Amino acid sequence: MSKPYLIGIDFGTLSGRCILVDARDGRELAESVYAYPHGVMDECLPCGTPLPPQFALQHPQDYLDVLSVTIPDVLQKAGAAPGEVAGLGFDFTACTWMPVDAQGLPLCFDARFAAEPHAYVKLWKHHASQPQADRINALAAERGEDWLPLYGGKISSEWALPKTLEVLEKAPAVFAATARFTEAADWLSRMLTGVETHSASFAGYKALWRAGVGYPSDDFFTALHPGLHGIVGTRLSETVYGMDRTAGVLSSAGAALTGLPAGTPLALPQIDGHAAMPALGIVGEGKLMMIMGTSSCHIINSRAEHTVPGICGYVRDGVVPGYATYEAGQAGVGDIFDWCVRYQVPGRDTEEAARRGVSIHQLLRERAMRLEPGQSGLLALDWLNGNRNPLMNADLSGLLLGLTLNTRPEEIYRAWIEATAYGTRLILENFERHGMRIGSITVGGGIAQKDEMAMQIYADVTGRDLHIAGTVQAAALGSAMYAGVAAGIFPDLSAAAGRLTRPSPRTYRPVPAHHAVYTRLYQEYRRLHDYFGCGENPVMLTLRKLSRG
Amino acid sequence: MSKPYLIGIDFGTLSGRCILVDARDGRELAESVYAYPHGVMDECLPCGTPLPPQFALQHPQDYLDVLSVTIPDVLQKAGAAPGEVAGLGFDFTACTWMPVDAQGLPLCFDARFAAEPHAYVKLWKHHASQPQADRINALAAERGEDWLPLYGGKISSEWALPKTLEVLEKAPAVFAATARFTEAADWLSRMLTGVETHSASFAGYKALWRAGVGYPSDDFFTALHPGLHGIVGTRLSETVYGMDRTAGVLSSAGAALTGLPAGTPLALPQIDGHAAMPALGIVGEGKLMMIMGTSSCHIINSRAEHTVPGICGYVRDGVVPGYATYEAGQAGVGDIFDWCVRYQVPGRDTEEAARRGVSIHQLLRERAMRLEPGQSGLLALDWLNGNRNPLMNADLSGLLLGLTLNTRPEEIYRAWIEATAYGTRLILENFERHGMRIGSITVGGGIAQKDEMAMQIYADVTGRDLHIAGTVQAAALGSAMYAGVAAGIFPDLSAAAGRLTRPSPRTYRPVPAHHAVYTRLYQEYRRLHDYFGCGENPVMLTLRKLSRG
Repeated sequence: MSKPYLIGIDFGTLSGRCILVDARDGRELAESVYAYPHGVMDECLPCGTPLPPQFALQHPQDYLDVLSVTIPDVLQKAGAAPGEVAGLGFDFTACTWMPVDAQGLPLCFDARFAAEPHAYVKLWKHHASQPQADRINALAAERGEDWLPLYGGKISSEWALPKTLEVLEKAPAVFAATARFTEAADWLSRMLTGVETHSASFAGYKALWRAGVGYPSDDFFTALHPGLHGIVGTRLSETVYGMDRTAGVLSSAGAALTGLPAGTPLALPQIDGHAAMPALGIVGEGKLMMIMGTSSCHIINSRAEHTVPGICGYVRDGVVPGYATYEAGQAGVGDIFDWCVRYQVPGRDTEEAARRGVSIHQLLRERAMRLEPGQSGLLALDWLNGNRNPLMNADLSGLLLGLTLNTRPEEIYRAWIEATAYGTRLILENFERHGMRIGSITVGGGIAQKDEMAMQIYADVTGRDLHIAGTVQAAALGSAMYAGVAAGIFPDLSAAAGRLTRPSPRTYRPVPAHHAVYTRLYQEYRRLHDYFGCGENPVMLTLRKLSRG
Repeated sequence: MSKPYLIGIDFGTLSGRCILVDARDGRELAESVYAYPHGVMDECLPCGTPLPPQFALQHPQDYLDVLSVTIPDVLQKAGAAPGEVAGLGFDFTACTWMPVDAQGLPLCFDARFAAEPHAYVKLWKHHASQPQADRINALAAERGEDWLPLYGGKISSEWALPKTLEVLEKAPAVFAATARFTEAADWLSRMLTGVETHSASFAGYKALWRAGVGYPSDDFFTALHPGLHGIVGTRLSETVYGMDRTAGVLSSAGAALTGLPAGTPLALPQIDGHAAMPALGIVGEGKLMMIMGTSSCHIINSRAEHTVPGICGYVRDGVVPGYATYEAGQAGVGDIFDWCVRYQVPGRDTEEAARRGVSIHQLLRERAMRLEPGQSGLLALDWLNGNRNPLMNADLSGLLLGLTLNTRPEEIYRAWIEATAYGTRLILENFERHGMRIGSITVGGGIAQKDEMAMQIYADVTGRDLHIAGTVQAAALGSAMYAGVAAGIFPDLSAAAGRLTRPSPRTYRPVPAHHAVYTRLYQEYRRLHDYFGCGENPVMLTLRKLSRG
């Protein structure tokens, strides 16, 4: 094999992670991480312009920098030559949505719009478009749009259409100057190949596109807002490719950006969570994949199609040809733990962690691990980033109950972890209640690898064995698999997975006594979930409205 | 006047505060504060014995130390001689309950019991006796005990009887060795005078004692627990004095302890919150006094007697002869703000406060002051120390709702303040709903003096003018007034108040626009209050039970 190497890059919420994989045996030869210099912009733009509540923007230059920094870095670390790379693939957060001009340049690169928030990339967790999402859902339900049930009966403010409508309504000048709205992933493909393509995975899960049908009707768009009349084929591209195609090959500009030879094959980009699936060896049905990171997703294949309310959606051939892939998710997981560590941990604990050379997470885990289930008397609703599934409402918010003057930070930390575990259990039970069989669960993502306490809590809460992924970089490895198929090394994804997947190194099993206590607490969680989430007491929505002034 | 000075000492939760007052004009000539070396013991005893949840103990040696440190200190600061002190008075937290032997020595001073938690002083906020309180309430309701309605239909776990029953059940050896259960205040009187007396104020509000009737019947005690048979007149003293009497004069031991001459008159001790009443000039009816500190109390006199459910109780002649004095309260106020500052504020804020030489409270206030009502989207239930009124249930717990990943510490800080203000509004409305007229409100205590933001929030939430007390040390000044009556300088409390009260230096008035938003939020608070507090969803009680294992 003169070109034995594959590159997979995982564009996450805070950084891009690049790995160099040996296509012969799946070994990960080198890794490089580049943190986005602009991170998540949720308070102000680079020029200082303050942002309204619930904004979460990114700067597209950061994505380009990931390419030019990490690809040469992994090659150098592994002692590999650019010419030995057979193919490149990447995955991306979604829906991470941006307006570009006719040349494909981001509008925020245009000096006229540098101080205009709506000209930037709207990260998946940008939630300011909840009012738009509410109106889209109401109109679609009223009109009986046939695509609505496919997405669990409700679309999320995180998706493409609410974000697009928000630009039209809040920044008409940006909308007017936009030639195309695009996923950041598809924009990056275009920067690399010089050719515009759109990945069916993103379009199917986030932009209401269906193979053979396309987007919702122009009637619907026009009824939603006259300014959206004719958007399909203009600001929304119809050049949508299934995962059986590739994005093309690197142009000379793409070669300059990456240091790889022009002509290197590029796989179609995949949604980050989905890219992990083949990397965990999941190419058939009945095996659920859970990726736990900033947020979590729960993905499972099925040959038969089911109508499952309260999920993000499903797309046939979206991940593995021949299967419909169902996705549900939790909007806040690691994000909540990080928020807790950032804002809910006092100075003396920060100092103790520094003195002992451990992270604050580690310090809290050490203490929280000694607690028995139920001991803290705390119960939380994990909705600090809204509820993605099953309620699909970004305006819901977090709740912490059972506080006393004796409550300590590690108890609160553990309560947030437990709350996300209850949220997972609810999603799993929702899948099963609607006919999906969950035979086994494999867990990937940073938390699965690093946080033994959280994983044991998840096993205890769900009452299920949790198999840990054989790779730390599931998404990046999956992207490398797609690259291997794009490069022709493997005939299909199953073959790539067969060669490159690593076995699970560890399984967490539920402790029956803990599961019993957690099942009691989970009943209480469900009751609060229904009370605050299903309309009985809409106080969270009332507070959100009041906070908007 | 050869003896122109009065000493008043306020025994609070964390320290004793002593003032020297000029009886001719009310000037506070000197002040001395002594923090209890043992503080509140809620995690372990001095010997290291760990404490169960909801324990809050104190060490009686700390009270003696307050006397021997602060009295000489104020005399020295003011350049006054011990012989110039006409009288001494003090007030105390209540119910702060302890077992003593036949000589009056605290059982925890006995080496046999030094490692026995139940031999120590149970501070007012010791809540481990909630199960005992529940059983007392159930039995009293079942038997139709005539004293139950006087206390709002429910007694608190903070009171004498639940704490006594807890000792009997949990530490029978301590109970057997106890000659007397006593308020710490009455024990201190005994240490100073050598004579045992019990103040009707404490006995009436906290030990179910009534003038002319006495304690509940032996039948009731025996039905509650056979071990309580015959407790009245043995472990519960019947030597209860009304506020028209004094505690006597300093013995030689009391003189040695204080540095004052033997024979100096000592007033009967008064409950801390009640002692503040005359100091704020409240000796008639229709004026409500609110004292805001670690906890808050709301006290008002009335000539007519009313049945008000959901209050702590009322005692005729308990504070001012000729009036029934009604008391309600909130179990956690400043305690909650301190907990928030201690555990919910990150290191970088602590550092910023230190760098700028301001307290963390100040730093958070500066930021929180810029927030509009409703802006944070947060709503809390202020039950971190249980709910005293109107629900009288120490097993209820705190709730914080509306959290997002953008929630910042100062928003949470403000939410806790707002929650306590809603709690106050609920108590005021409860008084009025049952026939009490609230003509004006005067506010004393540390928070009233120091925290402008909190006071404005309280005015905005309640929609009422709040007059700030003319003294920083209302309780200590009130104690000095009682001392002045005991010493014969004043014929009665009205005369003392007429001479020594200072005018209110400031009034906080509600801002109508803020009041409107807060009224909307208060409706939501009430709904959560009823849902979680009145039985519809008893999750807080369930969690508490689970946490006890």
